[in-house]
Amino acid sequence: MEDIRAFHNSHKLEYRNPFGAVKVGTTIKISIELNKEATVYIHTTSFKGREQEISMDYVFKNQDGSFLYTGIIDTSNSLGLLNYYFKIIYNNDVVYYGNNNDILGGIGQRYDYRPKLYQITVYNERPVPDWYKEGIIYQIFVDRFLNGNEKGEISSPKKNSFIYATWEDEPMYIKNEKGNIARWDFYGGNLKGVKEKLEYIKSLGASIIYMNPIFEAVSCHKYDTGDYKKIDGMFGTEEDFKALCEEAKKLGIRIILDGVFSHTGSDSKYFNKLGTYKNQGAYQSKESKYYNWYRFNKHPNEYECWWGFDNQPNINELNEDYVNYIIKDEDSVIAKWMKLGASGWRLDVADELPDKFIQMIKEKMLEIDEESVLIGEVWEDASNKISYSDRREYFFGKELDSVTNYPFRDIVIGLIEGNISSDLFIKKLMSLLENYPIENFYSSMNLLGNHDTERIFTKLSENMELLKLAIVIQMTIPGVPLIYYGDEVGLLGGRDPQNRRPYPWNKQNKEILNWYKVLGNIRSNEVSLKKGSFKPISISSEVLAYEREYKSEKILVLVNTTNRELECKFKGCGKTLIGLIDKTEGYEEIDGEINIKMCNHGVKIIKLI
Amino acid sequence: MEDIRAFHNSHKLEYRNPFGAVKVGTTIKISIELNKEATVYIHTTSFKGREQEISMDYVFKNQDGSFLYTGIIDTSNSLGLLNYYFKIIYNNDVVYYGNNNDILGGIGQRYDYRPKLYQITVYNERPVPDWYKEGIIYQIFVDRFLNGNEKGEISSPKKNSFIYATWEDEPMYIKNEKGNIARWDFYGGNLKGVKEKLEYIKSLGASIIYMNPIFEAVSCHKYDTGDYKKIDGMFGTEEDFKALCEEAKKLGIRIILDGVFSHTGSDSKYFNKLGTYKNQGAYQSKESKYYNWYRFNKHPNEYECWWGFDNQPNINELNEDYVNYIIKDEDSVIAKWMKLGASGWRLDVADELPDKFIQMIKEKMLEIDEESVLIGEVWEDASNKISYSDRREYFFGKELDSVTNYPFRDIVIGLIEGNISSDLFIKKLMSLLENYPIENFYSSMNLLGNHDTERIFTKLSENMELLKLAIVIQMTIPGVPLIYYGDEVGLLGGRDPQNRRPYPWNKQNKEILNWYKVLGNIRSNEVSLKKGSFKPISISSEVLAYEREYKSEKILVLVNTTNRELECKFKGCGKTLIGLIDKTEGYEEIDGEINIKMCNHGVKIIKLI
Repeated sequence: MEDIRAFHNSHKLEYRNPFGAVKVGTTIKISIELNKEATVYIHTTSFKGREQEISMDYVFKNQDGSFLYTGIIDTSNSLGLLNYYFKIIYNNDVVYYGNNNDILGGIGQRYDYRPKLYQITVYNERPVPDWYKEGIIYQIFVDRFLNGNEKGEISSPKKNSFIYATWEDEPMYIKNEKGNIARWDFYGGNLKGVKEKLEYIKSLGASIIYMNPIFEAVSCHKYDTGDYKKIDGMFGTEEDFKALCEEAKKLGIRIILDGVFSHTGSDSKYFNKLGTYKNQGAYQSKESKYYNWYRFNKHPNEYECWWGFDNQPNINELNEDYVNYIIKDEDSVIAKWMKLGASGWRLDVADELPDKFIQMIKEKMLEIDEESVLIGEVWEDASNKISYSDRREYFFGKELDSVTNYPFRDIVIGLIEGNISSDLFIKKLMSLLENYPIENFYSSMNLLGNHDTERIFTKLSENMELLKLAIVIQMTIPGVPLIYYGDEVGLLGGRDPQNRRPYPWNKQNKEILNWYKVLGNIRSNEVSLKKGSFKPISISSEVLAYEREYKSEKILVLVNTTNRELECKFKGCGKTLIGLIDKTEGYEEIDGEINIKMCNHGVKIIKLI
Repeated sequence: MEDIRAFHNSHKLEYRNPFGAVKVGTTIKISIELNKEATVYIHTTSFKGREQEISMDYVFKNQDGSFLYTGIIDTSNSLGLLNYYFKIIYNNDVVYYGNNNDILGGIGQRYDYRPKLYQITVYNERPVPDWYKEGIIYQIFVDRFLNGNEKGEISSPKKNSFIYATWEDEPMYIKNEKGNIARWDFYGGNLKGVKEKLEYIKSLGASIIYMNPIFEAVSCHKYDTGDYKKIDGMFGTEEDFKALCEEAKKLGIRIILDGVFSHTGSDSKYFNKLGTYKNQGAYQSKESKYYNWYRFNKHPNEYECWWGFDNQPNINELNEDYVNYIIKDEDSVIAKWMKLGASGWRLDVADELPDKFIQMIKEKMLEIDEESVLIGEVWEDASNKISYSDRREYFFGKELDSVTNYPFRDIVIGLIEGNISSDLFIKKLMSLLENYPIENFYSSMNLLGNHDTERIFTKLSENMELLKLAIVIQMTIPGVPLIYYGDEVGLLGGRDPQNRRPYPWNKQNKEILNWYKVLGNIRSNEVSLKKGSFKPISISSEVLAYEREYKSEKILVLVNTTNRELECKFKGCGKTLIGLIDKTEGYEEIDGEINIKMCNHGVKIIKLI
């Protein structure tokens, strides 16, 4: 069997057409090239586990002597994922051809055993609103952004908590001897502070504010909700929230909230472990109307909790009463805050929420506002995520619009730190492009860092050149760029809590700020960067190059990932080239060839008109 | 030798005259009673170690057949302590008579070997100013008393420290994994707060405010001085201090400061371990002018420090430059703050300061203000304290005026909790009365609790009756009563940091407050309680009884230490009896006998006129 060779490249239309994820009902033409005549099948597995073998027909013999086989996959009954590989029977022996070892799609490989699978995501179409897809997100960890009170006083400080003495203090967790949080720590940022800085946020090109949780909770991070229907007193009031949304709207800025539905705080209206709330909580009595929201092994002290933190008891999300409270009631949590001005929700630990629960949220959101957006916290490729042994239904049309794009962060850092080549960068990006429904790919929350990662400037060892590259890539690739407050002024910080330092209003790195503003505004102003197709260009393994094209407009992005000066040569197209970063520099086409000099770690964003 | 019996009672003038400590040069007549004729000597040891044997003369034979021997001790050359016992030679055998086993003075015992010693304190007379002896002290831990800023803002918060979110928060130390302080914690009390409450403090009968340290320092307790010549920025300014002293003076209130001279903070102008101060500190360079203030074993990281806390390096107090800085310079620390309004100093850990250093301080203080007062933190009987193997010279005329009377606290608590009898209480008190120069005894800082002990109400298990007894004893015994802020309103708290809770302005126990006010004012208004002699009265072992007498005035104090009703009978003296606490109750003398009913844990303060 040594002598049989096969070839399939899911990224090329000759082999798979159409490319990538498809709407349900689409027929897909799949082809494979062999160096021998053989009997060939496409083996498919549907999301529900149904397997099929589709005969492939011999089409023609290429000039190089290879044989092309084609088969048709009908996706009418295949909502979800459809995985495939090839089964080749030759001389009564069976060999396989499947996805490459890294499961990145594109060119695959031969196997003598059951191969790795190619993926086709089959979805029901649902467009994501343009304001989101074409926006830039500014993420705010409210306690650490700005105290907007007139004299910097703390509104409604929490009993037995600590306030940092100065805004410049270094964050720390205050722990007891067992290593548990003994007291919560606050700087005093609040909604008024966010409102005060709307113009500033807009000046970055941002059009969306995503805030970490803002509902009543004892912690500074508020992922331990105490009352879903109340703004935390330290952050402000319902009025403040409404005012923030209204003011933001005037500037064309939308607000997205963080919904933490997999667990509540133990010190909550619902669980009420400490008896802080007047009503009867689940911890206090089995008679509590919230008792069935939780999962007790033995009441009251043994209960499921998030990652073993006993201050965050897990929720039984599909409990009917919980569903009504959070989603279905007229004044449900989802409804209440959207009616007050929120345009979307980011679901904390979406992995731990039942698909059905996410679908109900989306349904309710559409009912209230067709233009609203639902984002999920997912750390991996969300199209084929398995959590708790189940494949997840995030992107099939009734669920999420967007997910946190951590893979993006990884490959950007890998590329510019020199740990992955531009080829591999493209391969990994193409894998997402192939697997995600196009609307979702263009809605990916492309982050370089957030409250759960090291800050990007720290991660890049404070290397300004590298940081600038990362920002260029973030602002020119499909997906919604996310700026984590402070990143735009060079705020440093390792893992939690250092990544939650207060915004350094008196110590902004102006060079970085300016770069963010320039790139943010290029992103906002250039339609091809917002809507345009994405096409990698192969110039050299040392240069990451890609085109974004929309109608007659095209933008070319070149990133020199090396520490050396480079010359990039490529064919001209008779168009005028305008540098968007270095506007003064002219690019000339000489004898049909364009030659661009790039300094070490240099970047070019060139508009072709 | 079985048959020889001896008797001496240092508390009785028949056996020792005059009583107690004496001015240098006084001749003291010492007597002993024997049941046989014998050769008897008084064996004395001076403070410097000189031993003498003084022959005792046979005086007369008593009616009961006992023989009285008398000797004279001349104290002209015996400044300091003079200890004595008796050596009795009878039938060529030697026996001894000395102090009792507990070394409390009074009745002694026979020994067959070298006995325990009686003590005579021999001092140079130096009166203590009346304002101190006759005053009541209110002790304030400034950070925890009151924030006097208009909006409760924090003045000059310290970088990387924490502010309690609410005044009612429970104090805690914020520690790192090694158990060391990671950040300091503040409530925000300040000098303005103290000034605001002067009238309140006066209403308790208090006439002296002693504040825990107020000079610049990173901690909340400020025993780690950063700059001796600066008020800590959180507490206020030099102006605030001056204003406080002036305002206090108008109300007849004096201010006493806490001087911490055995060590500084490591984060100080002088040591400057963290480079916080601009000048060169001892830690930074051997060239620093402060280098010789400290004791380095190996510069810079090995140095002597207080109780092993490396943030509190020990001072070489007799270093000439240090002496000048703290004491002798025109603008020395001692001078500066006295000129700005302080009337006295309390010396932290006086045990660890050289006698000479204390003497120089007192000398300087007298030079500036003859009416000033120097108090030492001493935990035991200060007249015979040994620290670091040396007998200390606290009370010989050139040193302290007063010491912290922790023994007083112990016996009051012991008595009212029923652990020691009223007899033993009296014995222990008489021991101090006998050993202390009378001015110093009347100047003892009689505390029931402070920042280094459990709070008294907590110590007494929140038993209101017992607390009231303790306060009565404190206010009616010679010595200066000290009220630790908050004790007067029932503030609870175990050891540090619970004993440093913020003053509960919104949760005062009015019953306790009223009792303090009543007793404080009785103390302030009754001259015999302030100046009068002290004489225990033997009524019953269940009743603590004593008289205070000044000129024609006498006050009788009765304390029922039991949980039962009791009747006290004693001889009348033809005077009118007025209850000072229960004014309405009349006491009548019937047939020359007075009969007073006392409820369980009842107290009577009766004025005889």
